[in-house]
Amino acid sequence: MSAYLELESRFRRIAALNEAVGMLHWDMSVLMPTGGASARAEQLAALKLTIHEMKTSTEFHDLLEAAESDVLDGSWQRANLREMRRSWVHANAVDADLVEAMTRASSACEMVWREARSENDFAKVLPYLEEVLKLSQEAGKAKSVALECSVYEALLDQYEPGGRTKQIDDLFADLVSFLPDFLETALAKQAEQGEAIAPVGPFDADRQCNLGRHLMQVLGFDFGAGRLDVSLHPFCGGVPGDIRITTRYGEDDFTQSLMGVLHETGHALYEMGLPEEWRYQPVGAARGMVLHESQSLLIEMQACRSREFLSFAAPLMRGAFGGTGPEWNHENLYRLYTHVEPSFIRVDADEVTYPAHVILRYRLERALIDDQLALVDLPDAWNSGMVDLLGVRPPDDMQGCLQDIHWYDGAWGYFPTYTLGAMAASQLFAAAKVAHPDIPEMISRGDFGLLVGWMRNNIHATGSSRTSNDILLAATGKPLGADDFKAHLQERYG
Amino acid sequence: MSAYLELESRFRRIAALNEAVGMLHWDMSVLMPTGGASARAEQLAALKLTIHEMKTSTEFHDLLEAAESDVLDGSWQRANLREMRRSWVHANAVDADLVEAMTRASSACEMVWREARSENDFAKVLPYLEEVLKLSQEAGKAKSVALECSVYEALLDQYEPGGRTKQIDDLFADLVSFLPDFLETALAKQAEQGEAIAPVGPFDADRQCNLGRHLMQVLGFDFGAGRLDVSLHPFCGGVPGDIRITTRYGEDDFTQSLMGVLHETGHALYEMGLPEEWRYQPVGAARGMVLHESQSLLIEMQACRSREFLSFAAPLMRGAFGGTGPEWNHENLYRLYTHVEPSFIRVDADEVTYPAHVILRYRLERALIDDQLALVDLPDAWNSGMVDLLGVRPPDDMQGCLQDIHWYDGAWGYFPTYTLGAMAASQLFAAAKVAHPDIPEMISRGDFGLLVGWMRNNIHATGSSRTSNDILLAATGKPLGADDFKAHLQERYG
Repeated sequence: MSAYLELESRFRRIAALNEAVGMLHWDMSVLMPTGGASARAEQLAALKLTIHEMKTSTEFHDLLEAAESDVLDGSWQRANLREMRRSWVHANAVDADLVEAMTRASSACEMVWREARSENDFAKVLPYLEEVLKLSQEAGKAKSVALECSVYEALLDQYEPGGRTKQIDDLFADLVSFLPDFLETALAKQAEQGEAIAPVGPFDADRQCNLGRHLMQVLGFDFGAGRLDVSLHPFCGGVPGDIRITTRYGEDDFTQSLMGVLHETGHALYEMGLPEEWRYQPVGAARGMVLHESQSLLIEMQACRSREFLSFAAPLMRGAFGGTGPEWNHENLYRLYTHVEPSFIRVDADEVTYPAHVILRYRLERALIDDQLALVDLPDAWNSGMVDLLGVRPPDDMQGCLQDIHWYDGAWGYFPTYTLGAMAASQLFAAAKVAHPDIPEMISRGDFGLLVGWMRNNIHATGSSRTSNDILLAATGKPLGADDFKAHLQERYG
Repeated sequence: MSAYLELESRFRRIAALNEAVGMLHWDMSVLMPTGGASARAEQLAALKLTIHEMKTSTEFHDLLEAAESDVLDGSWQRANLREMRRSWVHANAVDADLVEAMTRASSACEMVWREARSENDFAKVLPYLEEVLKLSQEAGKAKSVALECSVYEALLDQYEPGGRTKQIDDLFADLVSFLPDFLETALAKQAEQGEAIAPVGPFDADRQCNLGRHLMQVLGFDFGAGRLDVSLHPFCGGVPGDIRITTRYGEDDFTQSLMGVLHETGHALYEMGLPEEWRYQPVGAARGMVLHESQSLLIEMQACRSREFLSFAAPLMRGAFGGTGPEWNHENLYRLYTHVEPSFIRVDADEVTYPAHVILRYRLERALIDDQLALVDLPDAWNSGMVDLLGVRPPDDMQGCLQDIHWYDGAWGYFPTYTLGAMAASQLFAAAKVAHPDIPEMISRGDFGLLVGWMRNNIHATGSSRTSNDILLAATGKPLGADDFKAHLQERYG
């Protein structure tokens, strides 16, 4: 067998073991009794260590070197080999001890963070966070040498392969010069129109679930190849053929959970549409978190918060909950779903104010990683950043620097992908509508075939065969930019 | 680190990976969408291959040799090392290709068996079963050399370590000389008493579930360390700290499902009571399927089908379903739960006729493994065996040799453990009552503390530190015999 084919066989096993990790995580989040925590940690550690050992063996490296001097048949093979090398670089930059120390420190920190957040006590979690940051810096430094980039970029690369701060800085600067004034405009327009009316509950969880499942199917989700369940923090897990979406239901409001389900369905469609012939190979995986978020936001923000979709969905919502009255009118629901309001919490933010939350975190995490900011000064830096960017000052750390799990869980370099994804979503939806001008009208009839087909061909089916930028360029004719995002905001809120 | 401690560390990882396998199996049986089948097969194959490779490396063997020439501190360590060697022997007797061929053949055969059974078409599955049998013989032959026993015993050893046909033949001969006449006696006594009255449904599944959960808790099951779910074939899976019991509910009868739940709870208690300090080590695992079945049958047959337990449970059953009338009387429920009737289906059999089903399968599988019987002649051999042992002839193969999954799934050598387990259960319950004469009275008050405590000390906590026979000898003062089982049947049915 050629070195390359032997590598394919090894990566197939690595992918399958990684899928086992994913399934065990899903189980842990959805239904594991608390008594299972320590055994589950042991199972996950055994799997991760095994995968790490596979990737760091001498043999593995020799195969990689040998394969790289082979002549490979097709561009997919070449791209696959490139991704194999990328995976090797990430695994081999850090030794097993550091991997284990990070897993342990993140778990400990995350646990303390849950308490610290509910007790509004940043000092309590500070030493744990310091340990996580220190280890993340250590890993970032090691990877930055191998990847020939900055430490921050090396961490970012784990979520967005090839992501560079130059591009992010430029795009975010563009937004920062636009958003504050635009927010004023949007708020003024909203004030003119008057308040949207929120439907009043209680909304039965089973009915919410049925409505969510129905709309998932409208979007093309196949329940023979996936599930919808409940977890504290909604996510999209599972594997192609067995995608596991979660949500949580509040009895007093169905709108948030429902839109969350549609968001996760966007992620699910990406996974379901990955190239089947490259399943279990690095090149067959989703490209990165920017494109992943672009798919969920294209579905949620671009398609499903539109007038067209809500005119289709309003009668279904009314039917699901026996709703009557003007609050169930699709125009009211549209205003509800496009309500703008500066707030403290990122996950509750609308799409006009959301970028400010992300830009704040991006600035802070870069400063922390580069030792330009001390963790002890984080709460103040956070709060004054909120004033600068959004004009509001969080009253406490619970609504400030304690709100997100990411840093506490070791996910440094993740945040920018949210807003890059939002920009990519606008750009892709604009391109899809140029290719198929009747997409909005079809959405108003609940027909997503054309839109999802376009997403599948242009994004899903490309796997990791090219960079995010190249995939976007091919799909939209231009590199990632802020223009379509700004135009989208202008059109919807301006 | 000493060779022995290095082995402990490797077995810890192997155990954790095996637990991952178990969890993925549970998920597959309980909630995986059909679309996940091929990915799940890939995940399980990757895990099993990884475990097999760990156990068959040269290094691993060297460690084992080195550890065996070390002087170990305690008897648990020595027992652990013995179990490590046992595990090594089983893994190293067969090469990875044979393991994979067996997994593949069993999966294919099991799938065809499901159709063949529902279509009553043994010929359809025959070629697949031939392949499974051939590979099982091959594995058995290889293992028999390493274990210095017969091919059948080598297969049996996978489920009941150290199990020998001489012991089984003697015990089963004892039963065969007793049961046919005793069955006549039991049927005559039953006829005298008149028919028990079955409560009439429908019985709401949620109420059945609540009742089952309540009685599980009465037995000592901790829902912070386990779950009860629904699957087509009830089983007890999961791991200590996270035990996963399943059942299925029929709306027209609650009694079967409920007793099934109690049976699986017996298995669960064993797993929950294993020695915590030997978790993840071979010596910390349950001893084998004979003792495992003894724990489920002790709970189900000895304790929960007793007059004492049913006098406690009858009011709870009435309350759960709003029952009134004589059918809810505990004496009627006792007669219902101890009804005897020769039938074709093993899983529906009562405890008087059950051994005949097992003895038939034991005779047949030994003949098949030893090439004394051709698979094509199995249906006839089955049916005439049923006439010999129970006096009834199955009208078709669906109710004959197609009924059980075991052989089709590659589980050759498993069947005798059911009846050996039933005998062990009687022997253990008798010994427990000698030690604590008030156990029956406590059961009538729903207090299982003393009984389960005795089971924990005498069985659960011993893990795999001794052989089944030695564990039984220590717990009951005698080797496994048929006397207590016969005495139990005499007392209940004679």
